[in-house]
Amino acid sequence: MGNAYERLDKAFAKMHRLSHLGEIAGWDQAAMMPAGGNQARSEALAELKILVHGMLSQPAIAVDLEQAEAEEAGTFEGAGLREMRRVFRQATLLPEALVEAKSLAGSRCEHAWRSQRPKGDWTGFLVNFEPVVELARQEAAILSQALGLRPYDALMDKFDPGSRCVQIDAAFSDLKTWLPDLIKRALAKQAGESVVKPKGPFPIQQQKELALEVMTMLGFDFNHGRLDVSTHPFCGGVPQDVRITTLYDEADVTRALMGVVHETGHARYEQGLPREYVHLPVGRARSMALHESQSLSCEMQLGAHPGFVGLLAPMLAKKFGAQEAFQPQNLARLFTRVEPGLIRVVADELTYPAHIILRYEIERALIEGEIEARDIPGLWDEKMMAYLGVDTRGNFKDGPMQDIHWTDGSFGYFPSYTLGAMHAAQFFDAMRTNCPDMDERIGRGDFSPVFDWLSTNIWSKASQLESAELVKQATGSVLDAAHFKRHLERRYIG
Amino acid sequence: MGNAYERLDKAFAKMHRLSHLGEIAGWDQAAMMPAGGNQARSEALAELKILVHGMLSQPAIAVDLEQAEAEEAGTFEGAGLREMRRVFRQATLLPEALVEAKSLAGSRCEHAWRSQRPKGDWTGFLVNFEPVVELARQEAAILSQALGLRPYDALMDKFDPGSRCVQIDAAFSDLKTWLPDLIKRALAKQAGESVVKPKGPFPIQQQKELALEVMTMLGFDFNHGRLDVSTHPFCGGVPQDVRITTLYDEADVTRALMGVVHETGHARYEQGLPREYVHLPVGRARSMALHESQSLSCEMQLGAHPGFVGLLAPMLAKKFGAQEAFQPQNLARLFTRVEPGLIRVVADELTYPAHIILRYEIERALIEGEIEARDIPGLWDEKMMAYLGVDTRGNFKDGPMQDIHWTDGSFGYFPSYTLGAMHAAQFFDAMRTNCPDMDERIGRGDFSPVFDWLSTNIWSKASQLESAELVKQATGSVLDAAHFKRHLERRYIG
Repeated sequence: MGNAYERLDKAFAKMHRLSHLGEIAGWDQAAMMPAGGNQARSEALAELKILVHGMLSQPAIAVDLEQAEAEEAGTFEGAGLREMRRVFRQATLLPEALVEAKSLAGSRCEHAWRSQRPKGDWTGFLVNFEPVVELARQEAAILSQALGLRPYDALMDKFDPGSRCVQIDAAFSDLKTWLPDLIKRALAKQAGESVVKPKGPFPIQQQKELALEVMTMLGFDFNHGRLDVSTHPFCGGVPQDVRITTLYDEADVTRALMGVVHETGHARYEQGLPREYVHLPVGRARSMALHESQSLSCEMQLGAHPGFVGLLAPMLAKKFGAQEAFQPQNLARLFTRVEPGLIRVVADELTYPAHIILRYEIERALIEGEIEARDIPGLWDEKMMAYLGVDTRGNFKDGPMQDIHWTDGSFGYFPSYTLGAMHAAQFFDAMRTNCPDMDERIGRGDFSPVFDWLSTNIWSKASQLESAELVKQATGSVLDAAHFKRHLERRYIG
Repeated sequence: MGNAYERLDKAFAKMHRLSHLGEIAGWDQAAMMPAGGNQARSEALAELKILVHGMLSQPAIAVDLEQAEAEEAGTFEGAGLREMRRVFRQATLLPEALVEAKSLAGSRCEHAWRSQRPKGDWTGFLVNFEPVVELARQEAAILSQALGLRPYDALMDKFDPGSRCVQIDAAFSDLKTWLPDLIKRALAKQAGESVVKPKGPFPIQQQKELALEVMTMLGFDFNHGRLDVSTHPFCGGVPQDVRITTLYDEADVTRALMGVVHETGHARYEQGLPREYVHLPVGRARSMALHESQSLSCEMQLGAHPGFVGLLAPMLAKKFGAQEAFQPQNLARLFTRVEPGLIRVVADELTYPAHIILRYEIERALIEGEIEARDIPGLWDEKMMAYLGVDTRGNFKDGPMQDIHWTDGSFGYFPSYTLGAMHAAQFFDAMRTNCPDMDERIGRGDFSPVFDWLSTNIWSKASQLESAELVKQATGSVLDAAHFKRHLERRYIG
């Protein structure tokens, strides 16, 4: 039967192969499935989740983990075990009854939210949301106790292992103080610049062709993945077969396109994970923050880069006919246009962090019992005014009810977005140090300084290192918001 | 924990839900997956197969089956148990080592066949095929012993429970004697008729639109299924979400279209299975012969019906522009054109049974040790000449190497095709008795006499009755080749 580590390797390979089917069926549910198949599909996916959870939490895994940990400390297998231990803990720390209650309360709240949000029915939402919060607090308390972390850190650790409030507070409080001023200066600068919006319609078929061309340019491996359509764009599938989706709008050519660029960043991370241990937890992407760093490397660092925009401009003109809006300078302005608004998912690069800081502050206080769910709208209004100068009073739909994350209790996820942006900026600075003519080469369509660096320093490492060590080895220092700050200043008021 | 039957119901529901994911991932593999994903997908599907097989063959199932069988004889649960017992037997009768050896030998032979067939490399093929035959004989011997059936019957029983050589011999030897003469008479009749082939090209997009319109006309439920493209058309998915595929050819408008009509027949059977017990073996389609009866009801009975052709003709003209070939009379001639040829899958309705009888006779003799694999080409040449007047000497590619079935050891399947055609003819006679103006109503686009009858008598019954009883209750008598014979005579020399 081999030694303990070998048994674990086999068990995780088995779970990996079964989860593969869930990933594809989940993608299919979003991108292909007719509506009538939903009930059966949801049941099938839930059955698989229970099955894999059962496999993961069986006593033999615990026994083998302990034995292997004693045998393999400090080796590659040691890192493998650390990650196995992490997913084992996540699967077993919570009592089954709590997991089930969370799942039920989350589904109920999310399902009702879908019809409550359009009506801005905050009162109705609260009825389902309060139990979600209560159960998340219970979860945080149990994880906090077991892991020796403060409650919010314990939740964040699920998405972004090693991420701690103490560092986020430092980074975010810095961002928070200078961001409003930077936004004002950027707005003042942009007030004097004219920007032309592309005039449609832009037929879906051509948009799709262009998206595929841009994916090719960005090195997406079509032998191991594909592009499809779904209502909420995402990156799914498995590293050997990555499925990204987008949603085309005939009236708007840039939204789907830049969405595809974003998802391609996620996809290249997955496609670039080492195949030898793709079946083990240590072979997975490091964290959601790192994952967002990859999508934002593509969408923001590269996508709005003048060199990249210079390549995109003639492609747009060729596909849809020349128009003023497709001039490189105009496109670059369009992609960096700052406009404080209500909605996070359509926010620009500069105002996006304000949306995240607001959510982080509110959800942390909520989880740690400093506020209650009913206090959210007041805080929301106050912070939106302070950070973005936007009045949200009475607007629940486009205020605290806009995101799906809270509805099913995914507290601790939001910081990943801005941590991702910060990582991406730091990575690009490291690339420039490594390759001084990188910006010029991007303009010539040579992205190798970017992708070779990411492949060597991020993708190929999978989860071998903890995030902090990964970033340190890659860039020479731990995460430092100064890079992001410099990037924004250079781009928006430079 | 409920009683034994309830425990079985739960266990089978679980297997059904997990198998659902395999069905969708299998469809995806054929219709969506990029080539590079194949290795990981095949491993994932194999893992699921092992898992479900393990669930099915665990001792608790055997214990509960015995207990429930003692308790529930003669009830609806009794039929349910009979079918559970059937799949349990299939999963457990063969030693694991034989199952594995069969799977390996079959994969090896099929894989090599893909490149050997184009070269007609029969000698190379034999090297891999002989072990496949040997293992199939071992399988047949074990099943024969356990089930008290002759070896070939024991294999056929996997695809078509209850089907026995003794009935097939009677039906086929009858067919065999009058078919060559009927073919000659049909050819003589058609020699005097001019037929025009549609002139292309026929753009894929319009072919797809037409296919969807025809599926709609045939009552395909798009809320529980979809149409896509794959190299080898099939009907897959789950009853709640049936996936059919086709392959378009710009030069040929009727092949993909009639393929879609065929698969729609399979799909309606699946979509028409009762949802309440879709998770149990008794809720599945009765047999492959019955399944083929549904596809052939659509493709042959209905698809080449003058009334149906009269509806199709203006649809074709509207989509691709009027042309002589789209005249109803011409289309009807096209769909019933008799042309003895080498290839089964493109054979017409009248010569198709000859291909099947030939294969049945050869594979039965092979399994029962009357001939060896090396004897196949000689027999093939002889029978092709006798039944179809076609010379196949030295042509292995379009002779005994043309089908995939034998390469992986699926002996016992071929009779299902012609049994299906015979069933379909008998069903249509029963429908006509039930609704004397059916043919006229078909011409008006009212297919309710067909589909209501199939729904009531076939689909809704799933596997509650054994095939013979199902057919008897539906049509008043057991399967009788006379209906098929009359149908062919009416259509081809009438």
